[in-house]
Amino acid sequence: MQKDLLFVFGHTIRRLRLSKDISQEKFADMCNLHRTYISDIELGKRNVSLENIGKIAEALDICISDLFKEVENNAGI
Amino acid sequence: MQKDLLFVFGHTIRRLRLSKDISQEKFADMCNLHRTYISDIELGKRNVSLENIGKIAEALDICISDLFKEVENNAGI
Repeated sequence: MQKDLLFVFGHTIRRLRLSKDISQEKFADMCNLHRTYISDIELGKRNVSLENIGKIAEALDICISDLFKEVENNAGI
Repeated sequence: MQKDLLFVFGHTIRRLRLSKDISQEKFADMCNLHRTYISDIELGKRNVSLENIGKIAEALDICISDLFKEVENNAGI
């Protein structure tokens, strides 16, 4: 999975965000991050840091371990 | 937990590494990262990136979700 980790992570964030019907702009506000940064993360273009992973998980109301369980479940995409 | 996320993450990595009786130097080699970088991570001084979290989890032979379950279990330290 390592090879595609950023891509699968981004895809998972996007899926979870959309499942909560949150726009990218609103989500960026909730994370206190820039919208283009969220967009890049969702496209797998950013090697996101642990602190920002924490902000994203908090905004999605999920603990980080459960977030990565979702990522691992999506690893076959 | 957010406030201490880097610290608790680092503490967890150190604990798991020591439980496998791996030196910091050997662990750095296994992760393909520098020893001082591993040292800084363990001290909570580095905002480690997702790709490096993946390398660390792989070296510890644990999936990322289980690694963060350990981090969350250590959050009360």
